[in-house]
Amino acid sequence: MNYRMILQVVGRVLLIEALLLILPLAVALIYGEPLLPLIIPMLIAAVLGWLLRSIPVVKTDIGSTEGFTIVGLSWIVMSLVGAFPFVLSGAIPNYIDAVFETVSGFTTTGASIMTNVEILNKSCAFWRLFTHWVGGMGVLVFIMVVLPMSGDHYMYIMRAEVPGPVVGKLVPRARKTAEILYLLYIALTLLEVFFLLCGGMSFYDALVHSFATAGTGGFSIRAASIGYYNSTYIDIVIGTFMLLFSINFNLYYLLLIGEARQAVRSEELRVFAGIVAFSVLSIAWNITRLYGSFSGALRYSYFQVASVISTTGFSTADFNQWPQYSRILLVVLMFIGACAGSTGGGLKVSRVIILLKSIPAEVQLLVRPHSVNKIWLEGKSLSRDTVKSVQIYFYLYMLIIAVSALLVSFDNLDGETSFTGVIACISNIGPGLSLVGPAGNYSVFSSVSKIVLIFDMLLGRLEIYPILYLFIPYVWRRGKHA
Amino acid sequence: MNYRMILQVVGRVLLIEALLLILPLAVALIYGEPLLPLIIPMLIAAVLGWLLRSIPVVKTDIGSTEGFTIVGLSWIVMSLVGAFPFVLSGAIPNYIDAVFETVSGFTTTGASIMTNVEILNKSCAFWRLFTHWVGGMGVLVFIMVVLPMSGDHYMYIMRAEVPGPVVGKLVPRARKTAEILYLLYIALTLLEVFFLLCGGMSFYDALVHSFATAGTGGFSIRAASIGYYNSTYIDIVIGTFMLLFSINFNLYYLLLIGEARQAVRSEELRVFAGIVAFSVLSIAWNITRLYGSFSGALRYSYFQVASVISTTGFSTADFNQWPQYSRILLVVLMFIGACAGSTGGGLKVSRVIILLKSIPAEVQLLVRPHSVNKIWLEGKSLSRDTVKSVQIYFYLYMLIIAVSALLVSFDNLDGETSFTGVIACISNIGPGLSLVGPAGNYSVFSSVSKIVLIFDMLLGRLEIYPILYLFIPYVWRRGKHA
Repeated sequence: MNYRMILQVVGRVLLIEALLLILPLAVALIYGEPLLPLIIPMLIAAVLGWLLRSIPVVKTDIGSTEGFTIVGLSWIVMSLVGAFPFVLSGAIPNYIDAVFETVSGFTTTGASIMTNVEILNKSCAFWRLFTHWVGGMGVLVFIMVVLPMSGDHYMYIMRAEVPGPVVGKLVPRARKTAEILYLLYIALTLLEVFFLLCGGMSFYDALVHSFATAGTGGFSIRAASIGYYNSTYIDIVIGTFMLLFSINFNLYYLLLIGEARQAVRSEELRVFAGIVAFSVLSIAWNITRLYGSFSGALRYSYFQVASVISTTGFSTADFNQWPQYSRILLVVLMFIGACAGSTGGGLKVSRVIILLKSIPAEVQLLVRPHSVNKIWLEGKSLSRDTVKSVQIYFYLYMLIIAVSALLVSFDNLDGETSFTGVIACISNIGPGLSLVGPAGNYSVFSSVSKIVLIFDMLLGRLEIYPILYLFIPYVWRRGKHA
Repeated sequence: MNYRMILQVVGRVLLIEALLLILPLAVALIYGEPLLPLIIPMLIAAVLGWLLRSIPVVKTDIGSTEGFTIVGLSWIVMSLVGAFPFVLSGAIPNYIDAVFETVSGFTTTGASIMTNVEILNKSCAFWRLFTHWVGGMGVLVFIMVVLPMSGDHYMYIMRAEVPGPVVGKLVPRARKTAEILYLLYIALTLLEVFFLLCGGMSFYDALVHSFATAGTGGFSIRAASIGYYNSTYIDIVIGTFMLLFSINFNLYYLLLIGEARQAVRSEELRVFAGIVAFSVLSIAWNITRLYGSFSGALRYSYFQVASVISTTGFSTADFNQWPQYSRILLVVLMFIGACAGSTGGGLKVSRVIILLKSIPAEVQLLVRPHSVNKIWLEGKSLSRDTVKSVQIYFYLYMLIIAVSALLVSFDNLDGETSFTGVIACISNIGPGLSLVGPAGNYSVFSSVSKIVLIFDMLLGRLEIYPILYLFIPYVWRRGKHA
């Protein structure tokens, strides 16, 4: 294990965080808000980052173990420092609460412990929603673009931070891939800002909500979330962008280089579109009597399905009040989540496809024991190891949900709250059902439960291994390229 | 596919059912109750069975596909006929309700649609609880003992009907194995009757409750279930027998042939004991304030943990009213279920062990890609195919739960009812939480939902494939030994 190199990269992450804090600082300057709550964490991040950065490194080589460790450690450190503005500004006096809110931001969960988000000043609110944007594409992917490292071992870090069972390079060099991803991310974000401005939203509102959409986060500066604007146009724009940000970014790259046909043929995209279409229509039918007409129901159904499957968590209606079919289908969508290689969370559509395809393959094997059943995805046959690791990922996911639900149950809240709260956190959605529904928030949980949920959010966003590795002594002792 | 042979064996099952109906008929004679509701189904079973039995068979060979199909079909036919006594006696006028109750009996689920079970006459109540005993060890295993078939292809049928990932023969010949299993089953049942008589229970009550315990079913002739007797002695006896019937029967055979040491070394037994001990103690601690003292709480905790993990479903307390930790832990136990090769349901402890063991193996594979990680159970390394089929079983289980919960949700009951109702049915437990808790029953569901739950019970008891195969045209076209 290359400890020095790990610490050095964590140092870089802190330096980047210090730089990122310049943006809310600028907001504070513009609106004449106190600067100290932002300057102090900036200094902490800068000094700590500089100290770690100057650790002399003997070898720069890193392997997959180091990649996972770097990502896991960076996200924890980044969140611990990123929580200071909330504490120092007095908005969230309790440090654990502030860390919960920051982790919820970076992991693009959007679960909040605040009963009224409108009490935040502009600079804190900006930082809160900006964390979604930073966490969406990944801070280490960002570092690859701005702070080039020597050697060609970027892939290990990228693989650990970008969601999905298989991470493909767009171009041979990992750094170039990271650059293309961030350019696409910025372009799509700006496009959403443009469309929202056209709908009459103020620039500040449009910008921060675009951050939250891009990262599929779901924090809002309004207590009523997107429902505040009560505009069909804005619902459709944000609903559509939530879906756009939950598609594999590789497909946009294919579009750009003129391979639109290949992009449209994507199996994951088609399955995703199918699930969305089915859910939107069947929920609209299920809630028609609540909204008078099918077309009226369609507006709310489209937005909520997009919000849940993209794991954003914005709301325009209190879906906790919807009939059971809609509520349970939304919980199923929470499990599925977005496409791999997007900014969304959940199990990921491609994992669900692989899991489902492995079932008939196995049934056939029982009927005809010596048949060979390859599992195909996107026209390629998957290796046994890929299929296996997806299966293991699924149990770990279920196991974490079961253990977390048990730990959280000591708070003695109702079963729906405990259970959907955990799912909404590990899937990085935000709102669940019952007490943590769109009209509620996570302040109902005890501090111990909040810490459990903090880990769930990190486990979900980083897809388990980077966080898990930090707790396995066996891993620490392993050498490089292990 | 050897259709003629399949139908012939289904014929035998119906003949056996006609014979089994003699017992409730005797009860009706003793207590002077109407005989027709029992004679009519007896005649239907006998005539239909005799017709199917006389289909000329060209080849007697059957393979695993035929084994699964025979078991799936037999259980459905047997339940459709077994429902008649309830309809004809007027106790359950609706045929779907009666089929639900009968399937619930044979699959040893114990979920009831009756609001008051005490309205049943003695002979119907006897038949209702006797179905548990018949379904517990399996009717086809019984047929092997009493109606020997030519050839040595018993194993395929036995494998399809006996629960667990790996079915071992006790002795080289399958028929002999079936005989030993049934003798053990009868002996343990009689032992329970004896202990209950010692506790002052009437012979009738002791007999039918021993049937329900032996099959880990959970039906009772009392509306308050075992709570009716309000006796610590009876709670301990039934609690202990529920645990005894959820242990792999092979272990009793080992005890009998003097291999006690090997039996005690069983990994599945040890894990099972560990889970029981942990759950009993932590739930007792969690509910202490409800029952005044830890020892008082221990009595209820022991009984309820035994009842849920054995998937029996008897109750001495309304655990739906217990604190969240206890309720959620009980739901987790519902998923785990009993040991393989027992009469209990759920995923089975050995499957859970295999699933959990495959996780560190995979994590190690990620850290050290070329390492070979065998998974060991009971001192033997498992084949890749066994591990894989356990994993597939787990997704199918989860998938069936998700789809069923969605279908059932159209009834618009609360989420806990829909969700735990489905789990309690597929795991063959009986009571769930909320409306289907120990104080409630399944009459709250619509007919469509009841049909969904009927299939869940059958899928759970027969471990999916025998029922699944009936719906896959691809399987029908396959030849023997496929």
